Amino acid sequence: MTTYELFSDRLIEQVLRKKSHVVVGLDPVYEKLPSILKRGAGDSLKDICRAIFDFNRTLIDATYDIVPAIKPQVAFYERYGVEGMKAFEKTVRYGKKKGLIVIEDAKRNDIGSTATAYSDGHLGRVRLSSRNIAVFDLDAITVNPFLGSDGILPFLFDVREYRKGIFILVKTSNPSSRELQDLYIVSGNKKQKVYEYLSQLVNKWGKDTIGEYGYSSVGAVVGATFPNDAKLLRKLMPKTYFLVPGFGAQGGQASDIVHCFNKDGLGAIIAASRSINYAYKNNKKYGSKHYGSAARDAVLRMNFEVNKALEKAGILTW
Amino acid sequence: MTTYELFSDRLIEQVLRKKSHVVVGLDPVYEKLPSILKRGAGDSLKDICRAIFDFNRTLIDATYDIVPAIKPQVAFYERYGVEGMKAFEKTVRYGKKKGLIVIEDAKRNDIGSTATAYSDGHLGRVRLSSRNIAVFDLDAITVNPFLGSDGILPFLFDVREYRKGIFILVKTSNPSSRELQDLYIVSGNKKQKVYEYLSQLVNKWGKDTIGEYGYSSVGAVVGATFPNDAKLLRKLMPKTYFLVPGFGAQGGQASDIVHCFNKDGLGAIIAASRSINYAYKNNKKYGSKHYGSAARDAVLRMNFEVNKALEKAGILTW
Repeated sequence: MTTYELFSDRLIEQVLRKKSHVVVGLDPVYEKLPSILKRGAGDSLKDICRAIFDFNRTLIDATYDIVPAIKPQVAFYERYGVEGMKAFEKTVRYGKKKGLIVIEDAKRNDIGSTATAYSDGHLGRVRLSSRNIAVFDLDAITVNPFLGSDGILPFLFDVREYRKGIFILVKTSNPSSRELQDLYIVSGNKKQKVYEYLSQLVNKWGKDTIGEYGYSSVGAVVGATFPNDAKLLRKLMPKTYFLVPGFGAQGGQASDIVHCFNKDGLGAIIAASRSINYAYKNNKKYGSKHYGSAARDAVLRMNFEVNKALEKAGILTW
Repeated sequence: MTTYELFSDRLIEQVLRKKSHVVVGLDPVYEKLPSILKRGAGDSLKDICRAIFDFNRTLIDATYDIVPAIKPQVAFYERYGVEGMKAFEKTVRYGKKKGLIVIEDAKRNDIGSTATAYSDGHLGRVRLSSRNIAVFDLDAITVNPFLGSDGILPFLFDVREYRKGIFILVKTSNPSSRELQDLYIVSGNKKQKVYEYLSQLVNKWGKDTIGEYGYSSVGAVVGATFPNDAKLLRKLMPKTYFLVPGFGAQGGQASDIVHCFNKDGLGAIIAASRSINYAYKNNKKYGSKHYGSAARDAVLRMNFEVNKALEKAGILTW
């Protein structure tokens, strides 16, 4: 039973119930799928996308009770065109049906009128002739801040109206995030990095959406790969939930991501995709047929590692 | 007959042949469509998207011989989910069939492996079990540079491999583009705006793709709404083709966009969406039934205004 309705509260309730800060990224690449899913398939986009949905469904079935959320990366579905978007839609629906928070990693952005179109379709409602309907109906989406407030406000409307969440890119996990996000900007006598400046905007955009647990529904993407930056950003955005990519395949460690949390043991969800999705490749206990079990093992291991690191830091909540 | 193959050359050949620097944006919103398209429709996404494709086909039929390119904004299709993406795909194919350059306004961006997925699907090829196929197969796409080189290089691969184009956001047309893009950054003794810094990256990313006409296939998005910034950027990126949004509904004038061109009378394509798509609403000569003719009139008018402004500046090529 959900007591609270704001996105941040719904997310935190799942975290506390499942004792997990881990988000399963769903970034399917056909070539990497277990061979059992490929039998008799693979020479049309329809075949491929059927295999992709089967793969996702198995991963969701294997992990829905031990993580608060899944994060499909829409690029891996768009890649396969209209059929891919069908698989995306089915994945989102299936995840929600299993009680998971579903966060779309889409990094959308545009000018105001266009950002409205994105938000309508991904978070909010669109108008038909006699009624409004939800289309993709995600719980949350990642958003790029390069165009400034005009491109954020339409999403904020749906955050409030439909109790959704957004995660704004502040400091991304990739090596070249330095090229723009780490530049020093000056205004008067003040000198700060671009990501520090963005943290102030995130605070401003989120200030009216603080939930019962003290967190805003306007979150931030902060990469696990730059722990010192994360430490600073944690201080600068005390009420912001962090979506932390870069764990596992990208090199982020459990000891690194501790800095993304607050003293209350909350404030961050840690995403991993490749290390969970394709866990069967590195797990001799299970054959490729049991890729779901291998994924579950990888998630249990990650839950354990994250929780252990938090305990060591004296901030494990449970 | 196409003589040259690089994206920039293909684009310029179309510009010269049609004596037009205008790009028709296709940003369909169901509520704004002429009533003739709505008869018996509108209470399902399928109905709406059928009307949207009919609308686009009429606009393309009405303008394909007088513009070099169309620019569907994918947000307006994603908004309507999987059905919307079908209409998007059909629109792209129809535009190409009519000989137009089709530029997807998508502002995609992500870390390297994910940017590869986007580029595979939108510009390049995806692998099936026995062959590689093009999925959306656009001629060009707009890309957000916030994540730095990692997120750009996969697109550059397809620019070279499949003779495609990208347009990188440098200075967008919306009022709040100031919030991030106009900040002053410092490095040593050098102080410059973010968009100036980005212009150097665009030059670097594009330097190996210069075509027969002297332009790179790595373009830049530069808003019509900030003519002084455009003037500076024109100097900073002499070999970069500009995609210039913001003309018409957003307030950009023909006299403003002259600064986006080089002395050779080339270097910019000017996009307008709302003022062309919904021209029938402001045109008493045609009823809403003849929205295609109204759009054609609006394009002819825009061609005339842009060409007149270029002539006044002494740089009209034809």
